[in-house]
Amino acid sequence: MSYVQEQAEKVRQAAERIRGHIRRTTALTTDLDPDLRLKPECFQVTGSFKPRGAFNAVLSLVQSGKRPAGVIAVSSGNHAQAVALAARSVGLPALILIPEDANPAKVAATRALGAEVIQEGITFANREQRLREVMAERGFSLVHPFDDWNVIHGQGTAVRELLEDEPELDVIVAPVGGGGLLAGSAISAKSHNSALHVVGVEPEAANDAFRTWKTGSIQTLATSPKTIADGVRTTAIGARNFEVMFVNRLVDEIVTVTEAEIGAAVHVAWSRLHLALEPTGTLPLAAYLAGKLPGGRTGLVLSGGNANLQTVATLLGTP
Amino acid sequence: MSYVQEQAEKVRQAAERIRGHIRRTTALTTDLDPDLRLKPECFQVTGSFKPRGAFNAVLSLVQSGKRPAGVIAVSSGNHAQAVALAARSVGLPALILIPEDANPAKVAATRALGAEVIQEGITFANREQRLREVMAERGFSLVHPFDDWNVIHGQGTAVRELLEDEPELDVIVAPVGGGGLLAGSAISAKSHNSALHVVGVEPEAANDAFRTWKTGSIQTLATSPKTIADGVRTTAIGARNFEVMFVNRLVDEIVTVTEAEIGAAVHVAWSRLHLALEPTGTLPLAAYLAGKLPGGRTGLVLSGGNANLQTVATLLGTP
Repeated sequence: MSYVQEQAEKVRQAAERIRGHIRRTTALTTDLDPDLRLKPECFQVTGSFKPRGAFNAVLSLVQSGKRPAGVIAVSSGNHAQAVALAARSVGLPALILIPEDANPAKVAATRALGAEVIQEGITFANREQRLREVMAERGFSLVHPFDDWNVIHGQGTAVRELLEDEPELDVIVAPVGGGGLLAGSAISAKSHNSALHVVGVEPEAANDAFRTWKTGSIQTLATSPKTIADGVRTTAIGARNFEVMFVNRLVDEIVTVTEAEIGAAVHVAWSRLHLALEPTGTLPLAAYLAGKLPGGRTGLVLSGGNANLQTVATLLGTP
Repeated sequence: MSYVQEQAEKVRQAAERIRGHIRRTTALTTDLDPDLRLKPECFQVTGSFKPRGAFNAVLSLVQSGKRPAGVIAVSSGNHAQAVALAARSVGLPALILIPEDANPAKVAATRALGAEVIQEGITFANREQRLREVMAERGFSLVHPFDDWNVIHGQGTAVRELLEDEPELDVIVAPVGGGGLLAGSAISAKSHNSALHVVGVEPEAANDAFRTWKTGSIQTLATSPKTIADGVRTTAIGARNFEVMFVNRLVDEIVTVTEAEIGAAVHVAWSRLHLALEPTGTLPLAAYLAGKLPGGRTGLVLSGGNANLQTVATLLGTP
């Protein structure tokens, strides 16, 4: 079996494993362009695609026979809620480290899903160190947000479903932060049709994946990037993600978009698509609207809808 | 055949007639409550349910063999775009009378669909009179927004689809303005299961349908009501709508919601459901959130997404 077929088999197994825990979101068409197909992961449980990977990782842990004492994650966003939900579903405690300056609404949502949240003394800079300390203390297993095979294969189920709904697509476009969603999407796309063009989209202000693609080695941002797309503020893609995306060339292209282009996409998403997306979730739409995609029948993976309402209100209120 | 079965047969014929022109919107589930099913008509062509009725009316006219010189409608909102699109699809000219004070974005959207728009000298008060004059001048056929059997049967296709997706519902809830959507919904609901509880929701500020239900005769508002739900600013339901809803008792209950309850529902729709709905489209959700629905497995018909972005920005920006 080829690399891509082996990886795709793992995505198939993930789809089977997580069925009954996640929603099968149905592809949408839009008046904007008859060639577009939208995968609206804002309708996924918890409001983002993240439970696909989190459930696959947590269920795999439990089914492996080495049931951990609990699971742990570091996240200020959608991954936190996804891990909290997956852990609760299998009766495991979840501990989430969230930086002190995180959005209180997201902290509350994570607590509401039954997770223990530690914020005190957690910063973006020291959180990896604190993670290792807490893991050692409690014997919990880590669910990494992207550099984990089970997470990558779980995220791949979104495009797998999209291609079940719409088998004739020419282009697949997904946001890229750490590369979990993009690597999974690329596996599903290329195993479906090796001629499918796979595009990752990231903010210009966080162009590490773009530079990684160009240079052929993992490039790292010096600090967490300033971008309205808060779901892709990672400083580098993971090693496994790099292997899938660039060593095995399952991703064809990385496209960057400006903050203004993301803002415009949020406006179009809310007013024309009638989808209340978070800025990160509009990255593929931003690339489309900016004329940065190749054309043809195009599937946009709209990754989530957990927007900061104040930010969106400001965007919408600006004509 | 009983009254409801005869009416339902017309809805079935409408569904066949308009297939290929409208989208079959898929029911959604939500984290908010596992008993809720959402019919997201914001994803319908033009962003509201209105093309269901408009296409059924225009296609019926054309198929009757008495092809008119053109079609005409009076509307400042979603019905205008629906009639413009339906007319263009069959190659008929469309003339839309829109009051002078209407939202310029909606006027532009109607013109973009190829319709001729007359705004000069059109007011809410004189528009019926001007309509009759223009119809006589040009020999165009009217597509009434609600008091028209083809429109009622076309609108009924939305709940027909919802019950195909979700046959086990206990309650169906739809907004009520002139009663096209609610009458059609009630036909589809009661013919599916006579025990299904059918609820119409209107703003307290526009409670003519509520008073019509209570008194058993059509009640009329003295002036166009002031409500954020601009899709239901009609002053009375139609005669045909009254026949379906109250003479034949296919609607069980009318519920009213306050402007604050509508505002809260817009907030929840955009932040929790991730649906960018217009205020009118949130009326069933407003009734649900206010605890005004009976409970059980409940289908909410969310009628459209063509919101005034400034209004929504203000709502979302208010914590």
